[in-house]
Amino acid sequence: MSKLKVNKGIPQPEIVNNSSVNKFIKLKRSKLTANDYYKGIIEGNISILGRAITIIESNLPQDKKLASKIIEKCMPHTGNSIRIGITGVPGVGKSTFIESFGKIITNKGKKLAVLAVDPSSKRSGGSILGDKTRMEDLSQDTMAFIRPSPSAGSLGGVAQKSAETVLLCEAAGYEYILIETVGVGQSEVVVHSMVDFFLLLMLAGAGDELQGIKRGIMEMADMIAITKADKNNQQKANLAKAEYENALHLFPLAESGYSPKVSICSSLENIGIDYIYDEINNYIAFTKSNKYFYTKRKAQLKQRMEENINEALKQQFYANHEIKELFNKLQKQVEDGKINLYQATEKLLNKYNS
Amino acid sequence: MSKLKVNKGIPQPEIVNNSSVNKFIKLKRSKLTANDYYKGIIEGNISILGRAITIIESNLPQDKKLASKIIEKCMPHTGNSIRIGITGVPGVGKSTFIESFGKIITNKGKKLAVLAVDPSSKRSGGSILGDKTRMEDLSQDTMAFIRPSPSAGSLGGVAQKSAETVLLCEAAGYEYILIETVGVGQSEVVVHSMVDFFLLLMLAGAGDELQGIKRGIMEMADMIAITKADKNNQQKANLAKAEYENALHLFPLAESGYSPKVSICSSLENIGIDYIYDEINNYIAFTKSNKYFYTKRKAQLKQRMEENINEALKQQFYANHEIKELFNKLQKQVEDGKINLYQATEKLLNKYNS
Repeated sequence: MSKLKVNKGIPQPEIVNNSSVNKFIKLKRSKLTANDYYKGIIEGNISILGRAITIIESNLPQDKKLASKIIEKCMPHTGNSIRIGITGVPGVGKSTFIESFGKIITNKGKKLAVLAVDPSSKRSGGSILGDKTRMEDLSQDTMAFIRPSPSAGSLGGVAQKSAETVLLCEAAGYEYILIETVGVGQSEVVVHSMVDFFLLLMLAGAGDELQGIKRGIMEMADMIAITKADKNNQQKANLAKAEYENALHLFPLAESGYSPKVSICSSLENIGIDYIYDEINNYIAFTKSNKYFYTKRKAQLKQRMEENINEALKQQFYANHEIKELFNKLQKQVEDGKINLYQATEKLLNKYNS
Repeated sequence: MSKLKVNKGIPQPEIVNNSSVNKFIKLKRSKLTANDYYKGIIEGNISILGRAITIIESNLPQDKKLASKIIEKCMPHTGNSIRIGITGVPGVGKSTFIESFGKIITNKGKKLAVLAVDPSSKRSGGSILGDKTRMEDLSQDTMAFIRPSPSAGSLGGVAQKSAETVLLCEAAGYEYILIETVGVGQSEVVVHSMVDFFLLLMLAGAGDELQGIKRGIMEMADMIAITKADKNNQQKANLAKAEYENALHLFPLAESGYSPKVSICSSLENIGIDYIYDEINNYIAFTKSNKYFYTKRKAQLKQRMEENINEALKQQFYANHEIKELFNKLQKQVEDGKINLYQATEKLLNKYNS
């Protein structure tokens, strides 16, 4: 389906660009230990990094254990990237934006990872980045690591896995991490909860921009960029810019103390992209100086801890053999209408606690 | 903020239209028992129904207990409505559509409940229906019950609460339940998991419709309706219709065995709305005859049971005083970078299991 060459977590030795290649090519088909993964990641081996992310995304119990060990080892090397969330409705031009924006970062000699959070495509199990052909430059850039969205699942699970993927990328030395998400919904909240800076891309529309996006999403944005401000579209883009600026004035001051800017940009003509890069770095510098950067990261950590515990509670519950058996039995009874699901939950909890 | 008169779960005796009004007005400020709620709901008292939904939406432990009891009592009276999910990007005209569509239902003498799932507006804690002024007709219709989206929170929690609200509405005799959601994201998956029929509203655009909405959402749709097919817009709408029909042909056959239709409609000129009503009823009849209707409801029940257990596990964990204390202590250590969150989770689980 995808014409795009992306690092799918399968070893792709031809684009691995560091000294440990030969060693790891030998390990290609063999099982790696947590320590092998750790070393490969720290050395910046993207083949190993990709495989480690696959382990994180797996739901197999043995993989979960291995994932914990890998993350545990990587933890001391994490936290040093600038984490940027990017959202916007389908059609706003996220891929082309990321392509131009990403090149600015890699051209400055900085390593860039591009991830995606997309828990919505349940049936097709698709991915955001997977079906795109527009990031061809970036996907061939050895300074960039592009990882398509894994798959569907509970949003809690997706959030946890994405956050862990960010940690591994940081351990692998990526200095900018872009997390793309799509649409106007809960996935934005998830991405917002794991980034330092949240960029909202908007299209210049026909006057009804302010109804076109939900207030809640706009309030989360640290910057709004009007895309596709190409030659013929600049006037419309500038109009939209003015409208958003007015709208933002009506919002309460952001917790960061930083007033979100509205800018226009054209990914195709490469206009205004470097301004966004500078603006993000200004924001980071500002929020580091007023300590908000750290406060926010702490709050995110707190939330992550709660999510992690919730996942662990679930796993422990279903790992209990007797519980699993009773669960199956009761589920059948619920399906057949013999008991209701609340009664079933009560029975299961009673058994679990006995 | 809202100019719309909606039933917000606060008793609004002036629009209560049944015989038990006087009795319940006396109970207005007093605490009701689970049995009081049950009786009021069964009698179709919308003031009591609104208050019961508020109890369901509450996160207070005593309310959770009361909510369980109310639902437990109502369970035998549930399951008899047609549950319809409605989605579409902001600006597609969901409110005006629901207004026209809802009037068709109530004009046929059927009781209609309109709910919303909108977990995305985290900061403003807003609601989808809350800030709309377009459903004025429906909101004054005694056959209709409109309930704005409660508030933000974890999607799991929102799903559970919405599903329980559906149950209460069914017990109160509502025959059609519309659940509105917004955008292109995870909330669609949640709504899809609790309805019999999923309607996707689409705007006729500038030729790029097929990129404008995610494949995963289109695959979930049991019908696509192109909105705003008013006089000047009909040609464009028909073009879009043809495009979507072509696109749907490329999809695998739906599990229901029913081929999703594409239609055009105008809520303002009341064109094509009754066709959608008929089509939904055709779908329901078809899937009841091939049993898919029941298979799907069973699968939904199964999923709900899992979610319910997960919520119960969380509640039980944090209700443990010692655990809560250790949690607070470890959370502080995680924030200060003394341990990482995976170590904290392990310690908490060890304590919990000891």
